[in-house]
Amino acid sequence: MTLSHALTTAEAAFSESLSRLFELLRIPSISTDPAHNADCDTAADWLVRELNAIGFKAEARPTAGRPMVVAHFTRKSGTAKTTHALFYGHYDVQPVDPLELWHTKPFEPENRNGKLYGRGTSDDKGQLMTFVEAARAWIKATGDLPISATFLIEGEEESGSPSLIPFLKANKKELSCDVAFVCDTNMWDDKTPAITTRLRGLVHEEVEVTGPSIDLHSGLYGGPAINPIKALTKMLAALHDKNGKVQIPGFYDGVAALPKATKKQWASLKFSEKKFLGELGLKQASGEAGFTVLEQIWARPTAEVNGIWGGYTGVGTKTVLPAKAHAKLTFRLVGKQSPQKILKAFQAFAKKHMMKDAKISFSGKGGGAPASEVQEENPFIKKSAAALQAEWGRETVLMGSGGSIPIVRHFKDILDMDSVLVGFALNDDAIHSPNEKYNLTSFQRGIKSWVRIMGALAK
Amino acid sequence: MTLSHALTTAEAAFSESLSRLFELLRIPSISTDPAHNADCDTAADWLVRELNAIGFKAEARPTAGRPMVVAHFTRKSGTAKTTHALFYGHYDVQPVDPLELWHTKPFEPENRNGKLYGRGTSDDKGQLMTFVEAARAWIKATGDLPISATFLIEGEEESGSPSLIPFLKANKKELSCDVAFVCDTNMWDDKTPAITTRLRGLVHEEVEVTGPSIDLHSGLYGGPAINPIKALTKMLAALHDKNGKVQIPGFYDGVAALPKATKKQWASLKFSEKKFLGELGLKQASGEAGFTVLEQIWARPTAEVNGIWGGYTGVGTKTVLPAKAHAKLTFRLVGKQSPQKILKAFQAFAKKHMMKDAKISFSGKGGGAPASEVQEENPFIKKSAAALQAEWGRETVLMGSGGSIPIVRHFKDILDMDSVLVGFALNDDAIHSPNEKYNLTSFQRGIKSWVRIMGALAK
Repeated sequence: MTLSHALTTAEAAFSESLSRLFELLRIPSISTDPAHNADCDTAADWLVRELNAIGFKAEARPTAGRPMVVAHFTRKSGTAKTTHALFYGHYDVQPVDPLELWHTKPFEPENRNGKLYGRGTSDDKGQLMTFVEAARAWIKATGDLPISATFLIEGEEESGSPSLIPFLKANKKELSCDVAFVCDTNMWDDKTPAITTRLRGLVHEEVEVTGPSIDLHSGLYGGPAINPIKALTKMLAALHDKNGKVQIPGFYDGVAALPKATKKQWASLKFSEKKFLGELGLKQASGEAGFTVLEQIWARPTAEVNGIWGGYTGVGTKTVLPAKAHAKLTFRLVGKQSPQKILKAFQAFAKKHMMKDAKISFSGKGGGAPASEVQEENPFIKKSAAALQAEWGRETVLMGSGGSIPIVRHFKDILDMDSVLVGFALNDDAIHSPNEKYNLTSFQRGIKSWVRIMGALAK
Repeated sequence: MTLSHALTTAEAAFSESLSRLFELLRIPSISTDPAHNADCDTAADWLVRELNAIGFKAEARPTAGRPMVVAHFTRKSGTAKTTHALFYGHYDVQPVDPLELWHTKPFEPENRNGKLYGRGTSDDKGQLMTFVEAARAWIKATGDLPISATFLIEGEEESGSPSLIPFLKANKKELSCDVAFVCDTNMWDDKTPAITTRLRGLVHEEVEVTGPSIDLHSGLYGGPAINPIKALTKMLAALHDKNGKVQIPGFYDGVAALPKATKKQWASLKFSEKKFLGELGLKQASGEAGFTVLEQIWARPTAEVNGIWGGYTGVGTKTVLPAKAHAKLTFRLVGKQSPQKILKAFQAFAKKHMMKDAKISFSGKGGGAPASEVQEENPFIKKSAAALQAEWGRETVLMGSGGSIPIVRHFKDILDMDSVLVGFALNDDAIHSPNEKYNLTSFQRGIKSWVRIMGALAK
């Protein structure tokens, strides 16, 4: 009965919840622009005030950059078994350029036909306010939360989160919970909830191939003098076979086959490959043969050239045989692929595939991150999926993402905490773009979703 | 006896010849810089004055750009059989930047230890004055020339010769001779004369490969979305097999085997491949297997990428999967390879090697020029080679050049005239660079060489 009370309380407050979201949206907290530093402070202070008003103990904690909002609520009726969950979001937003493409002013939010327009509506103020309002509803309805909760709301996500790792390390004990909920992800579609359980890892490399010691005239030297562009393209062309399989020895070490159940669920999603590819001007999935588009993005690793350059690239012609050629690469990783091993294996492959007289050097910064995969049997995933299904009336899609969300790695590495990625954004929200929006249903049912998830975690 | 008289006359005038060359060198006739237009006029007028003084009928003829010096001398004792030769040179020079690297002022020529320093000493005022002074010596010694001569000395060679083709076409009848001598080439070494009988042809192409219709995030789309850099590198890598053989069907059509005698002469040159490659930081000839360095440059065609670009090429990383990738290519041609056929064959090859979903387009301007080869049995080559050998005491090397000299094509195409390329420059002359020089021996024995060549052409 307490759950239904919390849900009706949340519903009754929808209008006030929206007003509060709009207050937050009006603060132009652009973290990449120092001119908006004070606005970031204002947004942090606004959150602290709201969270304290709800019953959290909230503070804006200083960092070398923008303040970190940390708020705690210890379940009043709690025991040693009480679930302690961390909820992560960010109050900073992207810049608004090009301003002339906005149909409404970016910091004057508007509800038009069930869509909330304004910078930060979807990324991430709308999303973070779903769990804030859910907590408010629980406390208002029952005087307590079903769980103990820590809210961590940073202000530098759009500028690379430079203070995050130091802050997590410095406050390890305070921030280590049973599980983290990260709220800046998408639904499967506007009617179907989703939990993102797979994120690909990432490692970068940059190569420089040197042929002759100086740029040469391609007529006077072309032939005997090795062209480093030729050596580079030969090596890059050897990266994939004709089936799209990466040819670096050991590349697929740690890549497991997709579990049958997952394969089956993804196949059942009625995902239109034709539409997805068609919107990109393409006709076929160019990744590994034998895998669907979703599998290629969510469950298969890649070796991709992000940039290449060498010789003369200006207008017209220059008959140069250049001394150097370059490429930037990224490898997207899945399963247990190790960024360090992949880099080493690539370097060995690249050296082996260099033509004689061409030298290759590597200037990648190393590092990188392995893939994040939360096992679908994880109880937090199971409970959250069930709660989402109860709210939306459709089975929750356990989906992947081809991208990387660094915070998930940091929570795992620094705080030893799995992340459950739940969000209500949609592909057409235009985040980072003009006319960013968030569906009103995402906001309202998002609040109710969190009410249910919090309830489902009660012990 | 007339030849020896002309030679001794030339030798007696060496000091005055050098003074005259220095006068011309002091005129900063940089054709690429409009601030020097008047200097170009001055240089042209200087030549007209000198040539008229010798006994030519000389004029500075206006063009859309810098004036063209045209001078004629009809052999006084001539008959219908008299050889009529055109001598080509250019009075304009390269800019002098970076000025701070010059040890002497570029337009204050200096003879230091038998080397003449200054802009234009080698390219091309020093060279063109060798045939001017040779003509002067003949006329002074005998009151006549052994041949009829036309001098064509342009002022736009360093800025792409925009007026040359229209001028040749407009004055076709006046300029068509039995043979052209082009004087801006090299000796084999400082003791060995050379005639360049082979110049490679050239044709350009530029390709654009398109994958997705817009730049994509390499995480969110990497795998299914074709990367145009991948498609481009695969195609470029297919251009050569592991023996350096170009794989475009029909590419070698019209490429004849090197005549045995030529092969033998080149082999006898004691050309040090190790030294040549070592100076470039290289260890082996990377062109077609089974050919020497000289053969690869002088007698074999190439397919060379002069520039490549695509995706993110700035500092750091950007996880972009680009919409487009580009390359610029040149093909150096030999024998009877047709630029048009090579372009068509390449385009067909490139299309065939495109991955599915990648589109390639071509934006080269077409055109191009086939190779220039003068048969070594050509009587002008034979006579000139013998005359050079008489002067230098060594067998004249009939060499090739990997580059292209467009004037040779234009003389052939517009005036139906073969060119004999004789010059006395050396590899270390630093043309187009600071501290350009010309050896005093090149100047003095160059004059005597032309005295002998003119004499050898007498009929």
